[in-house]
Amino acid sequence: MSRPFGASERALLFDRKGRRYLVTLEEGGQFHSHAGYVEHAAILGRPEGVTVTATGGARYLVVRPTLSEFVLKMPRGAQVIYPKDLGPILMLADVFPGARVLEAGVGSGALSMTLLRAGADVVGYELRPDFASRAQKNVAAFLGAEALARYRVEERDVYEGIDETALDRVVLDLPEPWRVVKHAEGALHPGGIFVAYLPTITQVAQLREALDASAFGMAETVEVLNRTWHIEGQSVRPDHRMVAHTGFLTSARLLGAAPEQAPEVR
Amino acid sequence: MSRPFGASERALLFDRKGRRYLVTLEEGGQFHSHAGYVEHAAILGRPEGVTVTATGGARYLVVRPTLSEFVLKMPRGAQVIYPKDLGPILMLADVFPGARVLEAGVGSGALSMTLLRAGADVVGYELRPDFASRAQKNVAAFLGAEALARYRVEERDVYEGIDETALDRVVLDLPEPWRVVKHAEGALHPGGIFVAYLPTITQVAQLREALDASAFGMAETVEVLNRTWHIEGQSVRPDHRMVAHTGFLTSARLLGAAPEQAPEVR
Amino acid sequence: MSRPFGASERALLFDRKGRRYLVTLEEGGQFHSHAGYVEHAAILGRPEGVTVTATGGARYLVVRPTLSEFVLKMPRGAQVIYPKDLGPILMLADVFPGARVLEAGVGSGALSMTLLRAGADVVGYELRPDFASRAQKNVAAFLGAEALARYRVEERDVYEGIDETALDRVVLDLPEPWRVVKHAEGALHPGGIFVAYLPTITQVAQLREALDASAFGMAETVEVLNRTWHIEGQSVRPDHRMVAHTGFLTSARLLGAAPEQAPEVR
Amino acid sequence: MSRPFGASERALLFDRKGRRYLVTLEEGGQFHSHAGYVEHAAILGRPEGVTVTATGGARYLVVRPTLSEFVLKMPRGAQVIYPKDLGPILMLADVFPGARVLEAGVGSGALSMTLLRAGADVVGYELRPDFASRAQKNVAAFLGAEALARYRVEERDVYEGIDETALDRVVLDLPEPWRVVKHAEGALHPGGIFVAYLPTITQVAQLREALDASAFGMAETVEVLNRTWHIEGQSVRPDHRMVAHTGFLTSARLLGAAPEQAPEVR
Repeated sequence: MSRPFGASERALLFDRKGRRYLVTLEEGGQFHSHAGYVEHAAILGRPEGVTVTATGGARYLVVRPTLSEFVLKMPRGAQVIYPKDLGPILMLADVFPGARVLEAGVGSGALSMTLLRAGADVVGYELRPDFASRAQKNVAAFLGAEALARYRVEERDVYEGIDETALDRVVLDLPEPWRVVKHAEGALHPGGIFVAYLPTITQVAQLREALDASAFGMAETVEVLNRTWHIEGQSVRPDHRMVAHTGFLTSARLLGAAPEQAPEVR
Repeated sequence: MSRPFGASERALLFDRKGRRYLVTLEEGGQFHSHAGYVEHAAILGRPEGVTVTATGGARYLVVRPTLSEFVLKMPRGAQVIYPKDLGPILMLADVFPGARVLEAGVGSGALSMTLLRAGADVVGYELRPDFASRAQKNVAAFLGAEALARYRVEERDVYEGIDETALDRVVLDLPEPWRVVKHAEGALHPGGIFVAYLPTITQVAQLREALDASAFGMAETVEVLNRTWHIEGQSVRPDHRMVAHTGFLTSARLLGAAPEQAPEVR
Repeated sequence: MSRPFGASERALLFDRKGRRYLVTLEEGGQFHSHAGYVEHAAILGRPEGVTVTATGGARYLVVRPTLSEFVLKMPRGAQVIYPKDLGPILMLADVFPGARVLEAGVGSGALSMTLLRAGADVVGYELRPDFASRAQKNVAAFLGAEALARYRVEERDVYEGIDETALDRVVLDLPEPWRVVKHAEGALHPGGIFVAYLPTITQVAQLREALDASAFGMAETVEVLNRTWHIEGQSVRPDHRMVAHTGFLTSARLLGAAPEQAPEVR
Repeated sequence: MSRPFGASERALLFDRKGRRYLVTLEEGGQFHSHAGYVEHAAILGRPEGVTVTATGGARYLVVRPTLSEFVLKMPRGAQVIYPKDLGPILMLADVFPGARVLEAGVGSGALSMTLLRAGADVVGYELRPDFASRAQKNVAAFLGAEALARYRVEERDVYEGIDETALDRVVLDLPEPWRVVKHAEGALHPGGIFVAYLPTITQVAQLREALDASAFGMAETVEVLNRTWHIEGQSVRPDHRMVAHTGFLTSARLLGAAPEQAPEVR
């Protein structure tokens, strides 16, 4: 990753107010802002962390985007799962290299690229063709086209069933995950993990009820809060405002045969 | 991962109160608890999610431990970084397959196994030989001995310098990370990411001061709070108690040549 | 309040571990602990903040209990509303001297003594005679018998109706406050404030639905989190554990005639 | 409080977006907004909770402001202490009717009116004459001129000393409260309570160090977080954004004679 910037790569430009601009570098390209423009040539062949100056005098710091930065700047239609939740989802779903994961719906692909980068083989079910297409483009743009070998997106409705079997994980970002519980029972191997991201607690309660009536056990729900700090000399304090809510994360684990025998774990 | 349990594998047993027991399965082995014992033979060859019954009648649910579960149960001397922080660290440090990461100190290896599982090549600096040895054992136990090919632990003091160069990331869990800032400047390539985990805000302030005076930019500090929910029928509410603090996560990025030209990004 | 301790007063003894003991001082009395005993005579006639020594050598710091301290130590059967919520309730209910407040149920009187101390005239509805009696005793013990002149507790069911009219505030700590909404509409004057404390979000949703269908407007729900800090020399950090939940506070305001005309305030 | 609106009273007008306008009612007055105007005559003589219509058709709900609402809308120069902290301060400082409280600095009077309404006799030290004057006007506007009998503001620097003695409480909202600790030792009676509001943790650490070296004990620091909820039919979730920080509240209690004997309470 210490190689210089090349054509068709993504670069992230930061101005001094922390505004971020995602640029696809091209020979002969220009990045235009209110402060004039920057020739892509000023970036191509240079190392990460370089500073470039626009015609109007404004300076920009140029780096490769992290996954978190890319997710917030990539083309997207649907609401994405935010970076603050992506890391915890990796841990809750216990994603490992080679894990066979069903993801539905894929939306703009933020979660897909997180799962893929962690080494999973991902099958995505997505109802909307435009989302399916954009997710694949975003994955290829960030992870490279070779990641598509582990990423298959099908335009279909997960509420109607899951064809895969012996899956390791099922990860859901859709409004009615309780309609997927029965399908997931059949699609996961025993010990497999089910994770759902949901915006409202009303949905969570309905999902948990469905899980209680299923072969899943060890159900847990958590919300993740990130509190950032302002640290500048003697001024050390939490930032004045924060994101108070995005979604609730619910996980459960498929029990083996004869679940009626299993202890009800609390 | 749908294969049955085999000898020398780790199994996690849950009783109905949610207590967890980590067991290394062996032919002829027994798991003893206050409720009698379970023959390992009752688990070997069975699938995950199976329920076994101890001689005293207590039932246990048996699964393979997730990384989060393993970290909390594995042999450890030092305080480990908790699962709630491990996922966010993966995102902050933007760990990718093949990333060259320096980690110091390695402690019991919780962070090492998280980085390794995400595909990184990890060099660990650790002062204490007993920690270095245990970390490697824990990594091998959870990820398999083949993971050691990407994990080299050296018994040395990172405060005295870093030999590696062109690293992608430096991740620190030690008391005085400000003493590593200069070394990390030389060891990371431009655009490389520095992440430190620190228990007190006093340490964070001192680190941020050192970062301000360095070639690093885009410094940020965040704390991650996990709030779990109690959901049982109509009783839907946050749990009554939570972990309010473990540590603060600080990240920064190495700027390129001529940092005096870089915009001071806020 | 700078007067010395007198007989029949409450004193709070702190040991060096922060354990607290509430004692009613009497001539000839003794406070017994695992560390021996302290003669009340060692406290009577002494000023607040005095240190006394038990026969076994342990030392105790003696102060008059604050309302917060008293609430946590007074005789109580039901769950009390915690100090962290009492202050916010005073603000939400906008309690002022002379305010006519209906409180139901009164439980052990923690909220009653908070309202009374803020100057309100309180009518309490409480189903259980033992609670009604204890609440009055606790109020008299903390605020003095003269406070009972502004505190009338009736053994009755607020779900069946409210006799009072032109009340300033209605404050509820009971399981089904939606059953009180219609009664409160008739009992409060326009502009009057309704506040309910509820443990679960399920209850809150049901209450908010009832408020939406009522003459109340400006409904809001908030939860209050207190995060304490450990500060000792260089060790400055949040405490490791905290109370994550007690209850949700919901408030609303009675609109005037012709509410169908009122703007739906968000 | 069920009386109709009268001249020279404050009224709070809410539009349907929740925007709030504080108006001092006068015979012949008009409230002007982008939506036309409302004659004060449409409000005078009407009960709280009435709805009035501006010439442009917009409707406003009219109530008397609560203390919380008044504080956010009253004329103010300095940063005020927010309502979320005012209730907790009342509990931490354990304010009771007749309590003799020193407050410094008074700023715009938000805390003063909270202390006064809870029944305290308040002496305010304030360096800036314009603040002192505005605080008194705000107090009179919200609590009535009779409250001024219990409110004396002196234009002086509390860092230079406190003349009062045998005070019950000292409540501080100023940048260097550690410079007041020695003065407060002499001004409070034993058992008296010291409370300081501070924006940064750096200041808190310095204050706690001063308290550790003083005759105060039982020092505690807390921050108060309010999380509001969005509740509308099935959409039940925390609001997406929240105030993450205003200030830290630190309290301590003056120990009696011979503090070297007191147990160090944790």
